[in-house]
Amino acid sequence: MGGDFAPAHVVEGTVDAVREAPGRFSVILVGQTDSIEAELRRLTDQGKKIPGDRITMVNAAEVITMEDSPTAALRSKKNSSIAVGLGMHREGKAQAFVSAGNTGAVMSASTLILGRIEGVGRPTIGALVPTAQSPCFLVDAGANVDCKPRHFFEFAVMGSIYMSSIAGVSNPRVGLLNVGEEDAKGNEIVVESFSLLKNSRLNFVGNVEGRDILRGVVDVVVCDGFVGNILLKFGESIPGFFREKFLRFAAASTINKLVALVARKGLRTVMKELDYQEHGGVPLLGVNGVSIIGHGGSTPKAIKNMIFRAEEMVLKNVNGRIQETLGQHHG
Amino acid sequence: MGGDFAPAHVVEGTVDAVREAPGRFSVILVGQTDSIEAELRRLTDQGKKIPGDRITMVNAAEVITMEDSPTAALRSKKNSSIAVGLGMHREGKAQAFVSAGNTGAVMSASTLILGRIEGVGRPTIGALVPTAQSPCFLVDAGANVDCKPRHFFEFAVMGSIYMSSIAGVSNPRVGLLNVGEEDAKGNEIVVESFSLLKNSRLNFVGNVEGRDILRGVVDVVVCDGFVGNILLKFGESIPGFFREKFLRFAAASTINKLVALVARKGLRTVMKELDYQEHGGVPLLGVNGVSIIGHGGSTPKAIKNMIFRAEEMVLKNVNGRIQETLGQHHG
Repeated sequence: MGGDFAPAHVVEGTVDAVREAPGRFSVILVGQTDSIEAELRRLTDQGKKIPGDRITMVNAAEVITMEDSPTAALRSKKNSSIAVGLGMHREGKAQAFVSAGNTGAVMSASTLILGRIEGVGRPTIGALVPTAQSPCFLVDAGANVDCKPRHFFEFAVMGSIYMSSIAGVSNPRVGLLNVGEEDAKGNEIVVESFSLLKNSRLNFVGNVEGRDILRGVVDVVVCDGFVGNILLKFGESIPGFFREKFLRFAAASTINKLVALVARKGLRTVMKELDYQEHGGVPLLGVNGVSIIGHGGSTPKAIKNMIFRAEEMVLKNVNGRIQETLGQHHG
Repeated sequence: MGGDFAPAHVVEGTVDAVREAPGRFSVILVGQTDSIEAELRRLTDQGKKIPGDRITMVNAAEVITMEDSPTAALRSKKNSSIAVGLGMHREGKAQAFVSAGNTGAVMSASTLILGRIEGVGRPTIGALVPTAQSPCFLVDAGANVDCKPRHFFEFAVMGSIYMSSIAGVSNPRVGLLNVGEEDAKGNEIVVESFSLLKNSRLNFVGNVEGRDILRGVVDVVVCDGFVGNILLKFGESIPGFFREKFLRFAAASTINKLVALVARKGLRTVMKELDYQEHGGVPLLGVNGVSIIGHGGSTPKAIKNMIFRAEEMVLKNVNGRIQETLGQHHG
């Protein structure tokens, strides 16, 4: 029920997901059932065939809005779709949870309700970032703004496992985001994190700088959630900035206008790569379960991709591998 | 003598600067005089008229390379162009210092040799960042990776004075770079900095997010040098990323190739705005003097702009205004 287009986009994305993947999984839509039913009817009226046996509903009367304070909302709205859905996941009635709702609320509720994997101090969210080569995984993407070196290490381990399990990268190259390439660079916590990473079994290639991310020199970029959040949001704003500048360029002369008209297709293709919404959600890694968190403005396509991502996280046993690695370290 | 194209670009930029600004200032070229003389001859041979009375030379036998460790190099190379030039500035033989050499060395030497302005705990470098509106000043751009709240406050004050004095922005809007807009967001140090800024006389508009920078909603963006450095280097890598993607788009089909050919001009115009080298150097604010630090790869045009910037810093008495404001605060 969360997100800017709830429940319309969630329902449509779900229908598309089950249609595209016959027999692979079923989806429980948790929320205000009358609104969900209305959406399903709307889709049927549009001529979409809905595999009714693979989509069920569970009522959750309350809605945590995008403006709600996460902690306050989780206390006061016990019957939100977030709380009810995650409760079902914990009880084993579902194997994964997907939401485009209030990010802070989904993160807190996931950690609270599902608990952490043994050996994980801080669950983390990572984000796939496009590069000149294959996408890299930026972790932490905003879940933890104050971090200790051991959390950097956990992010690196979880990011590495995610990239090898889900993106199929063998022995992912891990870089520590820093202000220079030399070993001793950075602020105190980053310098300490460097030693931890260097002495680990990870494929740690050392420090990487801001300019290295888009060059694609590593598969996992490790940073705290403060830096990660700012960087990702900056990145998301680039297409809009260029659109603006290009419109101004086009307005400068008739020739420019013609150039801009012709160039539009190319620009769109290129800019689309920076459009995070297409990628569909980020996983919360380190919790005892699968929790995929989507952008508030998630399109049906993004929702569909989030469901596929959740399925993959279960099938590839990402959590088992995290526990195997970190459980030893802190055991 | 520092920088990737020394002394060629420095000499050419200097000649262009004095030619473009008749009678306004003279420049002392500090470095290996035989190399400098060779460059001046080369320019004369190319037919450039050199106003000899406004360009003088002072010999500095040693060179701090881009690879040298700043602190070690400053200790061992007492006759570097950086040390000699800054020494002349301290002694009043020059009113400003400009360099495209080893950034760390120029920063350390400037603070060491010139000293800090009364009330300034940490000298800072800021960078002008293009936005959809007018450029904004990101401060700290990399000088200080570990900061306390009072340093954030100093950055805000110095950035604000710089933008009003040099960029002509009246009552510059100051934003604190953060992971959310709400007052209590961020890591511990940023939350404390928020209170300091809120209770100041600055035109503090509150927290700004990564996505707000390019939108141009503030004139001064305050952050620590760790975040600032990573963000700026990330920004600098964007044109290269797009070039790469566009080449791949062009390679996909003949039509795409034609589209790309036509689009090139527009892309170049737009990308140029992101090209920091054009802007020409960043000022080190908070030292008892004027020290402008350029990119190692500075073009002659960038050097010329750095000289103009230095002149402006002197004429507008930026340091006097910094002392007036911060001297009171910590007096």
